[in-house]
Amino acid sequence: MSDVVKIAVDAMGGDNSPKKIIEGVIHNHNKNKNTFYKIFGDKQKIHPLIKDNIKNDNYEIIHTENFVLSTDSPLEAAKKGKNTSMWLAIESVKRKEADIVISAGNTGALLVIAKLNLKMIDTIDKPALSALWPNKNGMSVVLDLGANIECSSKNLFDFSIMGASLFTSLYPNQKPNIGLLNIGSEELKGNETIKETFKILNDKKSNNYDFAGYIEGNQIMDGEINVIISDGFTGNIALKTAEGTANFIIKELKKAMTNTFLGKISAALNFVNLKKFKKRLDPRLYNGAIFLGLDSPVVKSHGGTDYIGFSNSLDVCNRIVKGNLIEKIKRNI
Amino acid sequence: MSDVVKIAVDAMGGDNSPKKIIEGVIHNHNKNKNTFYKIFGDKQKIHPLIKDNIKNDNYEIIHTENFVLSTDSPLEAAKKGKNTSMWLAIESVKRKEADIVISAGNTGALLVIAKLNLKMIDTIDKPALSALWPNKNGMSVVLDLGANIECSSKNLFDFSIMGASLFTSLYPNQKPNIGLLNIGSEELKGNETIKETFKILNDKKSNNYDFAGYIEGNQIMDGEINVIISDGFTGNIALKTAEGTANFIIKELKKAMTNTFLGKISAALNFVNLKKFKKRLDPRLYNGAIFLGLDSPVVKSHGGTDYIGFSNSLDVCNRIVKGNLIEKIKRNI
Repeated sequence: MSDVVKIAVDAMGGDNSPKKIIEGVIHNHNKNKNTFYKIFGDKQKIHPLIKDNIKNDNYEIIHTENFVLSTDSPLEAAKKGKNTSMWLAIESVKRKEADIVISAGNTGALLVIAKLNLKMIDTIDKPALSALWPNKNGMSVVLDLGANIECSSKNLFDFSIMGASLFTSLYPNQKPNIGLLNIGSEELKGNETIKETFKILNDKKSNNYDFAGYIEGNQIMDGEINVIISDGFTGNIALKTAEGTANFIIKELKKAMTNTFLGKISAALNFVNLKKFKKRLDPRLYNGAIFLGLDSPVVKSHGGTDYIGFSNSLDVCNRIVKGNLIEKIKRNI
Repeated sequence: MSDVVKIAVDAMGGDNSPKKIIEGVIHNHNKNKNTFYKIFGDKQKIHPLIKDNIKNDNYEIIHTENFVLSTDSPLEAAKKGKNTSMWLAIESVKRKEADIVISAGNTGALLVIAKLNLKMIDTIDKPALSALWPNKNGMSVVLDLGANIECSSKNLFDFSIMGASLFTSLYPNQKPNIGLLNIGSEELKGNETIKETFKILNDKKSNNYDFAGYIEGNQIMDGEINVIISDGFTGNIALKTAEGTANFIIKELKKAMTNTFLGKISAALNFVNLKKFKKRLDPRLYNGAIFLGLDSPVVKSHGGTDYIGFSNSLDVCNRIVKGNLIEKIKRNI
C-alpha cells in the first residue's frame, strides 16, 4: 500500500447528493492531503462542484449513467446492474483500484451489491454492520446493527474478532476488550446462543483482545468495554433506542431552558458550554457504519448527514485503511 | 370492590428497608386517604417507623419471621417457604384479602413466588414484565422487559392485549394504539415471529385498541404509540440502553454546564428550569414494573428507589386497582 489512501466515493447516494458528497470530499481534502478520491457519478453535476477546490492529482471522476435510488429495494438496485455509481465504486475496490469504498446511499442495496462483488473473508459466514458509539471515555465499536436478524454462536464469535480488529485499526495503541450484550435479570440470563458464545470467547485466549464477559444495555456508554457484540435485531433496536432517548432528552432540555425569560438569558450565558456539549454529542462525529466480513472495507455514511458528517466518514475510511483492518481480521481469526 | 383500595406491601424488600418502604407508605397515605395498607414484615422494626403517622384504620402490620434477600436465587427464595414477607404478601392477594401486592425486593424471586401462588389468567401462557416509559406526550406501556427471553407470536399477541388493558386502566379516557418493536433495515424487516404477530394483530380488530404496526427503537419516545410490544430479551436491552443513554447525557451536560465560572452562574440562573427538566425525567416517576398475566396484579418497585419512588409505585397500584386491570384483560382476550 502506498502512503496515499485511495477512497472510492459513490457521489450519488443520500439526501442532497452529489452536492453534499462533493462538499464533504472538499472539506476532507482541506484537512488531509494524502487521500485520493475516485468519485463515481454524474460528471456533469460533479465537475462544477469541485471546480479548483481539489488539485487534479487528488481526484478522478468516473462518469456513471445510472444510480441507485433510496426507494429501490436491494433487488431492484442490483438489477440496475453494472452502470450505477454504487456498483462501479464497489467494483473498483474489487479490482484493487481503490482501498475502500464509501456510499451515503441505500443501506440494503449497498450490502447486497457489496456481497455480489466482493468475497467474504475465509471462514466468516455473515457480514456484519458495525458502528462507533460514543461513551464516557471515547468511542466503542458495536455490532451487528441490523445486517443479521438471527445469529449463531459462530457468527457472534466472528463478530467479536472483526469488531476487535476494527477497534485496533482505529485506535492502534489500545488492546480492546469485548463484551457480549445480554440481559441481567436473575436466572434468566441469556439464551443458549449467547451462553455458547460466552464459552467460546472465554476458552479461546488471544493476545490481541480480552474477553470481559456480559454487558447490559445500561453499561454500553460507561466506556469500560471497547467492543460490544449482539445479534443484528437487538443491536439495531439498542442503537435506535439510544438515538431516540438522546433526541428526547435534548429536546426536553431545550424546552426547559428557554421556557422563561431568565432561562433564555442563562442559556445565552451558557452558549459556549452548551455548544461544547452539543459538539461532544454531535451525531456527525459517529457517522459511518462499517460492513465487516467482506474482503475489502465498505463504509456506509448516513443518508441524512451533512457535508461535515460525510467528511468525518471519509476520515474513518482513512483510519481503517491505514490501520490495515482486513489484514488484522485475517490475522485474528 | 369497595372504594378503599387494599394494597399488600412487602416491607422488607429493596435497599434500606423497611425504613424507606414505610416512609413511602406514609408519604402515599398523606396524599391519598382511601387506601388500606397491609404491611408484611418485622413488626418490631415497622411499628416504631409508623408511630401515629397513619391512622389505625388505614393499616395493619402482619408480622413475618423471615424475608427474601436480594442475593437469594429465586429457588432459594421460594424454598424459604411460607413465612417470608414476600410470600405472605402475595398469598394475601390470592386469598382476596388485598387487591394488589407490591414489593421492592428481588425481581426473580417475586416472579417465581407469584407464579407459585397465583393462577395465570385463562389462555395466557406466560406472564410479562411491563413498565411505564416517558415520552413526548406522557407515558407509554412497554413489555416484556425481561421475564421471557423467547416468545411465540401467541405470547406477543397476549402481551399486546395485556399492555393495552394496563394502559386503559391507567388512562381511562384514551383508546390506546399498539406498536410492535422491530428493525427497519430494508427487506430484513423482522423475524418470523414478529411477522406472524403483525398478521394476528392486523386481522383481529377490537374496539378497545388500535394496531399501529411496527415501531423502531428511535420512535419509542415520540409519544405516538401507547403500548410497545417486544420479547423480554430485546425489551430489557432497549430499556437499559435508554437508561444508560439518559444517564450519560445528563452527566455530560452537567460537566459542560459547570465547567466554567460563567457556566456555573448560568446554571444557577437556570435553577428553576433545570429543576423542572429534572422533575420531568425523574426516574422515580416511572418507578414500578407490573407483572401481567397473573390472576391478581403484582407490582415491583425498584430496589434502589427512595421513599418518593416507592410512594409513586403505590399510586400506580391504586390506579391499577381502580382501573380494573384484571377484568379489562379478561374482557379483551
